Amino acid sequence: MFEAAELGRSVSKQSYKEQLPDLRAQLLEAQDELRGRNIPVVVIIAGVDGAGKGETVNRLHEWLDPRGLEAAAFGTPSDEERERPRWWRFWRALPPRGKIGLLFGSWYTMPIIRRVYGETKNAQLDDEMARIANVEQMLVRDGALILKFWFHLSKKAQKKRLTKLESHPDTRWRVSATDWKHFNLYDKFAKVSERAIRRTDTGEAPWILVEAEDPSYRELFVGRTLLEAIRGRLNGGLAHIAPPASPHPVPPTDPKASLTILDHVDLKQKIGNKRTYERELIHWQGELNRLTRRANAAGRSTVVVFEGWDAAGKGGNIRRMIAAMDARVYRIIQIAAPTDEERAQHYLWRFWRHLPRAGRVTVYDRSWYGRVLVERVEGFAQPDEWMRAYNEINDFEEQLTEHGIILNKFWLHIDPNEQLRRFKEREEIPYKQYKITDEDWRNRERWPQYAEAVNEMVARTSTEFAPWSLIPANDKKFARIEVLKTVCRRLDEAL
Amino acid sequence: MFEAAELGRSVSKQSYKEQLPDLRAQLLEAQDELRGRNIPVVVIIAGVDGAGKGETVNRLHEWLDPRGLEAAAFGTPSDEERERPRWWRFWRALPPRGKIGLLFGSWYTMPIIRRVYGETKNAQLDDEMARIANVEQMLVRDGALILKFWFHLSKKAQKKRLTKLESHPDTRWRVSATDWKHFNLYDKFAKVSERAIRRTDTGEAPWILVEAEDPSYRELFVGRTLLEAIRGRLNGGLAHIAPPASPHPVPPTDPKASLTILDHVDLKQKIGNKRTYERELIHWQGELNRLTRRANAAGRSTVVVFEGWDAAGKGGNIRRMIAAMDARVYRIIQIAAPTDEERAQHYLWRFWRHLPRAGRVTVYDRSWYGRVLVERVEGFAQPDEWMRAYNEINDFEEQLTEHGIILNKFWLHIDPNEQLRRFKEREEIPYKQYKITDEDWRNRERWPQYAEAVNEMVARTSTEFAPWSLIPANDKKFARIEVLKTVCRRLDEAL
Repeated sequence: MFEAAELGRSVSKQSYKEQLPDLRAQLLEAQDELRGRNIPVVVIIAGVDGAGKGETVNRLHEWLDPRGLEAAAFGTPSDEERERPRWWRFWRALPPRGKIGLLFGSWYTMPIIRRVYGETKNAQLDDEMARIANVEQMLVRDGALILKFWFHLSKKAQKKRLTKLESHPDTRWRVSATDWKHFNLYDKFAKVSERAIRRTDTGEAPWILVEAEDPSYRELFVGRTLLEAIRGRLNGGLAHIAPPASPHPVPPTDPKASLTILDHVDLKQKIGNKRTYERELIHWQGELNRLTRRANAAGRSTVVVFEGWDAAGKGGNIRRMIAAMDARVYRIIQIAAPTDEERAQHYLWRFWRHLPRAGRVTVYDRSWYGRVLVERVEGFAQPDEWMRAYNEINDFEEQLTEHGIILNKFWLHIDPNEQLRRFKEREEIPYKQYKITDEDWRNRERWPQYAEAVNEMVARTSTEFAPWSLIPANDKKFARIEVLKTVCRRLDEAL
Repeated sequence: MFEAAELGRSVSKQSYKEQLPDLRAQLLEAQDELRGRNIPVVVIIAGVDGAGKGETVNRLHEWLDPRGLEAAAFGTPSDEERERPRWWRFWRALPPRGKIGLLFGSWYTMPIIRRVYGETKNAQLDDEMARIANVEQMLVRDGALILKFWFHLSKKAQKKRLTKLESHPDTRWRVSATDWKHFNLYDKFAKVSERAIRRTDTGEAPWILVEAEDPSYRELFVGRTLLEAIRGRLNGGLAHIAPPASPHPVPPTDPKASLTILDHVDLKQKIGNKRTYERELIHWQGELNRLTRRANAAGRSTVVVFEGWDAAGKGGNIRRMIAAMDARVYRIIQIAAPTDEERAQHYLWRFWRHLPRAGRVTVYDRSWYGRVLVERVEGFAQPDEWMRAYNEINDFEEQLTEHGIILNKFWLHIDPNEQLRRFKEREEIPYKQYKITDEDWRNRERWPQYAEAVNEMVARTSTEFAPWSLIPANDKKFARIEVLKTVCRRLDEAL
């Protein structure tokens, strides 16, 4: 999940200066309208130490009208607070209607820290997160807009940042012994935070991951996302007769500010030559055959999901995979437009129905991710529908893996030029013409929107129990071997 | 909670015959409209053995158009089902849009049984219930209407029923060894079921408790509640632009069908004479003084909530209580119309703010229950708002008790005649005139609606950690002693 906030997104000084005045003017305007409309806004600033949370809070104080802003920072509880139920201090700090409440530290802090320090177990963390999700839902239904920013730094970046702050006399005070103690627990923190975030990443109050290394990017990103969320809420009408406006990330406009996780896939990777490919193919197909037999004998099922750009090679990959398996064991489900019967049910129903029996393999050629890809980009699903789908999908996949199903999710990645080459090839070769339609050309025009959707999909659904594998597929042969290897590795680990 | 389904509600044979034809006609009409509007309805039939669940399912089959009805019963899972994740069988059984799905047994059955048999702990039960609440919410947001009927029989009634079924050759097959085994675990079942119900009693998919002893009442009640819920949903518009129509209980029209929990409060109870009263008063005030000192020393806080009919004697009770306490320890919060500041927050905010510090006592003269009493009856809160308030209140009270606060909730009950006598007395005695307003007379006219609201309040919020005490208050002196005794008992147990 956090890999989606380690992309190197940044904004140039020049660009920052250009965008800022307009953003500030619009924020003030939106804040003013908010007051008139009696909507409370809760902004939670959370995340790793040294990621500029404090600076961002200060910046928002500069940008916003202080009369409509209430800030609260939660450190060690006071006597007054300790003597009352834990949530008392948070209720005290909730902004009234018409105001923005900035919560620096929040109801997330202690449950995460206590879990990291081993004072609680996962069950208690999950309980706390369930309560938090309930309270947030309650506030949203009462009319509130909730924005939850998670400031992320990579381990390397955090170390660099803490060292730098410490080295200068003016900023040394910002780094405490606790900060270093937490740094040493970085991996543990990442794991626990991921769990906490996943369990509270709801459609109504989704988490917004902030790539925090570049201050200009970070500030503009938070400001723009806040602005758009307020605007969305202002257009939404009364809470109890309209769906909540789901806040979503709004990156600043700068080439490096819209980098996605796909930009980090190394498309230059290739397989040496045809001989190598064939040798590897036979080897991994053999492995796969052996492993699926073992899984079958053990009653463990496998689900393989293929998503990717049009013409990225899903079909070819699936053919290489099934070639290695006993025909009685696997089943391929092609996901096209839903049938009448499927349309009359919840969108997940059509995927549930095809789940494999014990020991079998189901290959989904496109999948439930259509909800947050094509349905999102083409507007077939409303924003509140696809925003809550991430959570629904995570729960679905958790149920599969709890049952022991081995789940593989592949995104086959190619670049636009390679896609163009393949489209043209398809048009020219008669027996490939059926594969190319007008729709493919239309989808191609929305490449950036799809890339953003893929980025958010990976950020929100790459979980410890069902991680995404992004496969470089400009070289078809390389992709096929990668996919086979990955499935084999996961089967091997699970059995 | 289950005491609200042991009221002796029944419907006469005559009345049943009169009401049935109309109900059946209207159900068919509603079902027909449902089809046109593409709304799926999920009806869950759950509850104790021998409570007539099977008969009710059969009755609904008779009453409804079979073309729009899909029924599923869940017994021991099949091979097919066992080899897939647990929810697979339920997804298979979900009704498509436009149809009613009758689920006899459901996703609740196994988690409850496993907890009763000690195969799981509360944490796992809670996890399961959280997942269920999520799935139900997901279905509601997708447009479904969910009705969850819990069929209840008292322990005595269950035994009678099983014995009777067994004694007749034609019905003997209905009683299995498991039924008797479960009967022996009645109390354990009641406890676990209550927990499961409380955690899934949401505003969108609330539980509807069915008093199941009288078949005529039970069937009409289920039929009418189903009918009104469908109608409510049909008037509600699209799910994602309207609040879900919260199903709520609709009792048949028969004098004995609208009995409430208040009808079971024995108002004839009296204190012997003035001497006895004064002796008892001094005794219990002394006890209370001693116990609040101990609580103070131990840092345990106490919250006392007073609700009741107008002129039921809240003020007099509160005065007797505080007379026994050190003035530095207690605080009385009068709940009248909210202040501006309070109106700008979620309705629970004004109650959170007054929570006592460690060792103190807060007495609420009226409370958060206004949401489900006056706000409900007078229409100040929308149905979806007060329906979800039960759950919000239970969570709030759970947080108080988790923190160690000793929580007492009193409903002071009088009958309408006694109220009239007191109203007139207030009008006649000059120094009592301030106590009686036009509003009191207006509230009086809605006695039955208030009684129904109190009934539902007790059913949904009398929890193991925060039970309601219904105090007979026709005799003021008796009520005062009862209240003091109850507070003392709870303090004594807790310390």
